[in-house]
Amino acid sequence: MPASPIRKLAPYAEQAKKNGIHIYHLNIGQPDVETPHQFWDAIKKIDRKVLEYSPSNGFEEVRNKYAYFFQNRYGLKNLMPDDLLVTTGGSEALLFTLFSILDAEDEIIIPEPLYANYIGFSKSGNIKVRPIPTDFENGFALPSIDEFEKVINEKTKAILICNPNNPTGYAYSDAELNRLKEIVLKHDLFLISDEVYRDFIYGDVKHYTSVLSFPELEQHAILIDSISKRFSACGARIGMIATKNKEVLQTALKFAQQRLSPPTVEQLGAIAMFDVEEHYFTKVNTEYRKRRDTLVEGLNKIEGVKCHTPGGAFYCIVQLPVKDTDVFCQWMLSDFNYGGETVMMAPASGFYATEGKGKNEVRIAYVLNSIDLNKAIKCLEEGLKVYKEL
Amino acid sequence: MPASPIRKLAPYAEQAKKNGIHIYHLNIGQPDVETPHQFWDAIKKIDRKVLEYSPSNGFEEVRNKYAYFFQNRYGLKNLMPDDLLVTTGGSEALLFTLFSILDAEDEIIIPEPLYANYIGFSKSGNIKVRPIPTDFENGFALPSIDEFEKVINEKTKAILICNPNNPTGYAYSDAELNRLKEIVLKHDLFLISDEVYRDFIYGDVKHYTSVLSFPELEQHAILIDSISKRFSACGARIGMIATKNKEVLQTALKFAQQRLSPPTVEQLGAIAMFDVEEHYFTKVNTEYRKRRDTLVEGLNKIEGVKCHTPGGAFYCIVQLPVKDTDVFCQWMLSDFNYGGETVMMAPASGFYATEGKGKNEVRIAYVLNSIDLNKAIKCLEEGLKVYKEL
Repeated sequence: MPASPIRKLAPYAEQAKKNGIHIYHLNIGQPDVETPHQFWDAIKKIDRKVLEYSPSNGFEEVRNKYAYFFQNRYGLKNLMPDDLLVTTGGSEALLFTLFSILDAEDEIIIPEPLYANYIGFSKSGNIKVRPIPTDFENGFALPSIDEFEKVINEKTKAILICNPNNPTGYAYSDAELNRLKEIVLKHDLFLISDEVYRDFIYGDVKHYTSVLSFPELEQHAILIDSISKRFSACGARIGMIATKNKEVLQTALKFAQQRLSPPTVEQLGAIAMFDVEEHYFTKVNTEYRKRRDTLVEGLNKIEGVKCHTPGGAFYCIVQLPVKDTDVFCQWMLSDFNYGGETVMMAPASGFYATEGKGKNEVRIAYVLNSIDLNKAIKCLEEGLKVYKEL
Repeated sequence: MPASPIRKLAPYAEQAKKNGIHIYHLNIGQPDVETPHQFWDAIKKIDRKVLEYSPSNGFEEVRNKYAYFFQNRYGLKNLMPDDLLVTTGGSEALLFTLFSILDAEDEIIIPEPLYANYIGFSKSGNIKVRPIPTDFENGFALPSIDEFEKVINEKTKAILICNPNNPTGYAYSDAELNRLKEIVLKHDLFLISDEVYRDFIYGDVKHYTSVLSFPELEQHAILIDSISKRFSACGARIGMIATKNKEVLQTALKFAQQRLSPPTVEQLGAIAMFDVEEHYFTKVNTEYRKRRDTLVEGLNKIEGVKCHTPGGAFYCIVQLPVKDTDVFCQWMLSDFNYGGETVMMAPASGFYATEGKGKNEVRIAYVLNSIDLNKAIKCLEEGLKVYKEL
């Protein structure tokens, strides 16, 4: 089991903090945006005496609100509360999905770089990850059908995408999704789509398409969702599996029954949060677009640093002029500071299933306000200067 | 993946409720005892704007309170906050433990009947469960060392006990624990002890001994805990792994990092709950002892029904004069009522890893007050009379 590339440098960060160094956290997707007040109001109003289990698939009202939200905000009119299973975060949604559709030794295709924990979840179930390379040079667009067909074999059960993508920020086009549809139907595979960043779409990708939008994929498509990023509610640990495939949902329910239930209080808070005004999303989206632009502009000005303008989510993969970002990122925490400050980033090697890839890349999460982002960029620039001379 | 024997009859119960039937739930360990007010007070006082992730191993303050509580209430003076990993319920604590110490195809020995989800968790990791039979006739006491040695082989990595036991209510004696210690040391195995019911000890078992009490087992013993039963806080989903074995804890932490963090709000509530007065435990214990006595006395008066007086937890395995309790328990929900009421029980077959065992047994959770328990017993008695004549 590999250590999380997002969290494995935590002990060095702890030590730096103890030494009085301020750290800009660009390593983890923990937004600083305020959670809608509806959540806090709702949990303050809970009038219960016994903190009971919820049903294993979540409170009925959570599923109702979830379905209503998806029907109205995303136009998925066909999605019903019975198509949903509430999970303890998007992490558990993905774990249960993998366990439900893949046996040990089965294979799953994932474009890489990929969300590091996909590798860990797969390893937990002795499932084999077959990465498909996407290129920094063309902004991590989906590879051609040929690339998929090269690795499809009788053990292949599913393709997993993250859209918009963590760690690349890439948002898939309709043409790309249609290409995936073709492959999935031709080879009778499941298409799992992790859409937890779907509220974060910027620039020219106007019409976001969910994997659940394709009627032909009804029995193939499985959507992974979470309230963590949408509502800046990462600590709630409330996520969801949505699929029209009843067999998959029934199997996932068995795993859900095993762990008894998702957290009760946080579900009661979530119910209220779905009523947040549209204004909240507009404001958050505008703020993140500004951060993205600040980051991309600032980084590309640094000598030897390269990054694309991501179309969604709040991550990007950045090329640095160093040989090994694992060493560099650790050094930034343990041996460097600029005026008492430094930057924590996630080395990108952990986001590749292929050994040796991503050595000169980091994943950056732009979850700080623009002022702090600019300070962090300056810090990185100075760090690179000093590191070059070592 | 097997369906949960505790929850699989839920659709029949739903239907009965829709038909206006009142159901006494003896199938699930959901206590009706009030959660300490400290929990509700604490979450009402949360003054945060962003619902952030906690550290993957839980908030430091949860680990501090947990260690202090175990040191003082249970005399485990040696247990430090760094020996703990906070999990999303006891379920996750057990899952991470199994994943950390057993590879696919490895074997774990568990006395049966056993908590049904142990089978499911093991299956998730392709781990093989080797059940050791315990007997209804002698109250489900631990079998002799011989019985263990019969099944130990080079694939055996651990023994798992639940103490006090779910589903039997059996509380292990010091002599039995010493016997386990010997086996574990002789064959260099891990001893996992699920002690989530340790606050529920009745009768003659005065000195409860934790697996963490044995200094010789420091590198072998892994304790599974949960606040669910102790504080009647099942919906919180807060549990813990405690071990002095740093390698095990480090490996479990990798799984914990993968799922990011346990729920934040419920942890903040839990911190306050550890300050509950001793009076709370005394009161709860007295109440459960009364319920146990009511249940055992009432059941043993019914013709053909047999049950022991359990020493701990709030479960017992009960023999019924029927051929197949799976059929009978479903019938009680779908075809029977006594004055508009019926009883939901968990068929015991799901608590055996050995096919065909437990067919005439049910697991009963005595989580209702004595008045309701008596009504439930009457209902069961009448149900058995009608069923006999079918």
